[in-house]
Amino acid sequence: MEKWVLAIDVGGTFTKVGLVNEEGQIIGEKVYDTGAKQPFDDFLSKLKDVIAELLRTHGKGIDVAAVGVGAPNSNMHTGEMEDPPNFNWGSRVPLAKSIEVICNLPTVIANDANAAAIGEMTYGLARGMKNFVVLTLGTGLGSGIVINGKLLTGENGMAGELGHVNVDPYGRKCNCGLTGCLENYASVTGLKRTVFELISEMREESSLKNISFNDLTGVMIAEAAHSGDPIALKAFELTGKVLGTKMADTAAHLDPEAFILAGGLGKAGDLLLNPTIASMEKNLFIAYKGKIQVKISTAPSAHAILGPAALAFHYLLDHS
Amino acid sequence: MEKWVLAIDVGGTFTKVGLVNEEGQIIGEKVYDTGAKQPFDDFLSKLKDVIAELLRTHGKGIDVAAVGVGAPNSNMHTGEMEDPPNFNWGSRVPLAKSIEVICNLPTVIANDANAAAIGEMTYGLARGMKNFVVLTLGTGLGSGIVINGKLLTGENGMAGELGHVNVDPYGRKCNCGLTGCLENYASVTGLKRTVFELISEMREESSLKNISFNDLTGVMIAEAAHSGDPIALKAFELTGKVLGTKMADTAAHLDPEAFILAGGLGKAGDLLLNPTIASMEKNLFIAYKGKIQVKISTAPSAHAILGPAALAFHYLLDHS
Repeated sequence: MEKWVLAIDVGGTFTKVGLVNEEGQIIGEKVYDTGAKQPFDDFLSKLKDVIAELLRTHGKGIDVAAVGVGAPNSNMHTGEMEDPPNFNWGSRVPLAKSIEVICNLPTVIANDANAAAIGEMTYGLARGMKNFVVLTLGTGLGSGIVINGKLLTGENGMAGELGHVNVDPYGRKCNCGLTGCLENYASVTGLKRTVFELISEMREESSLKNISFNDLTGVMIAEAAHSGDPIALKAFELTGKVLGTKMADTAAHLDPEAFILAGGLGKAGDLLLNPTIASMEKNLFIAYKGKIQVKISTAPSAHAILGPAALAFHYLLDHS
Repeated sequence: MEKWVLAIDVGGTFTKVGLVNEEGQIIGEKVYDTGAKQPFDDFLSKLKDVIAELLRTHGKGIDVAAVGVGAPNSNMHTGEMEDPPNFNWGSRVPLAKSIEVICNLPTVIANDANAAAIGEMTYGLARGMKNFVVLTLGTGLGSGIVINGKLLTGENGMAGELGHVNVDPYGRKCNCGLTGCLENYASVTGLKRTVFELISEMREESSLKNISFNDLTGVMIAEAAHSGDPIALKAFELTGKVLGTKMADTAAHLDPEAFILAGGLGKAGDLLLNPTIASMEKNLFIAYKGKIQVKISTAPSAHAILGPAALAFHYLLDHS
């Protein structure tokens, strides 16, 4: 019988739940408020109701074999969310174990970027690849590293925090407490910070000078760049330059086949891709030059549950 | 019957060959000139003679099961040395295949640092570890990365070139053609370059001002530091600072259990270790702080063939 999995994407604002099969077909997707500021138990009872309804409506006659969960700051080894920022659920949130109890199904959990990496390998641009890195460039920068077809988890389940490699020891302050972390440069927020740095430095006119930091979005910067705005263009150029340099360092660690850029910043397309590839190639050690693909993910963000779904299928494969 | 392997360490100057058992016992070690500037066939015929003599003298009644080889710029996937600097053996040297023909035994090859990593896991400080990084700090900086108990080889067999992550895009020129690569800072050569930079900058008296760059050795700098020389002390401090920063970046990729520092620079002990650990901890992302061991390898360089030996046993284990 065809296997299905429950896929859950826990975001700071919305949680998405759906049933997914191995081909990536989604039935009965539900989206609801996570309630990250409310107690964890409230989240669980709502989740329990949503899953029960989902299975009542769509679960008849299908074999649901496992649950895959993507959630911020998740430790694959312990199944816990560790100090998730913007959540009032405590310092160690036993997410996998709690969902296992609700569903009575094996439950596997990973942070969003790790789930996205498995999603790309199963349903996306990384099909057939065994060694690649997914960078999710959104509010911050997340990463998922795949080696020999397996997610790299590391000694403590926390591998792949490329948002926190160092760009400049005297650079931008990071929410994590360090200075100069990559996610303050290569993310939607990083791009905004770069625009504001350039406004402080450059003399050119720019429509972006009419917009406050809090009102500014990545889409606005991309639109300004497309209409030739010099500050917006320069901001993408600098963002790609920094990102490419650090991707070259990552290549010196991993010798990957490809980088896949996902998340909101990826929507900028060639504006981001061209300077990123140029900078990466310039900085690559000779053994890797010309060998690494850089692609922008084609997965629509509406399909956020495909990552967790792939994670669950991956787990089933490993334990069959 | 107890298994033995032939272990070969091919260096730019000397080649070492010996028979080693699983406990790391070495019998019949031979050392001879590599002849890196002579044709590759000369090297092979000499190697053939040495191995024949070794087996004649020590091979009676023992089961030799495989050959492990450590050699510069070796690709584990192809078994070739790729553009090895200082060797006149061509651009692609079929080292594994050639030795396989000589010995009629399965032959596995890796670069020196990768072999050292497997050696540390089998006979050294990494016994029992599954996720760690060995940095060989000698003339250059080599690295071997172990993940889940396996050597990381990457998509093209060239993973783990941490000598070429970037420290400073406007920094020191590297032999590889890039600018600011780590091995120009954290290696014996890097330490010497730092001493010369400090001589140009500092006013303090220093015995090192009497020594030319070509005459200066890592041991001299360590001795000067031990006797309180301000430039030597500062040079170790800066070397550790740079190395620790980059180790923090490596941790953000791999979430390792430990770093093991090997090679000539490691002999400096606490002079190197203290500033390195301080800098790494300062720059570590919160998820890793206080969790990563940093140790100096206790393997004497005289036992360079233990790495290749461990590589061969590792191969046998994978193929049994």
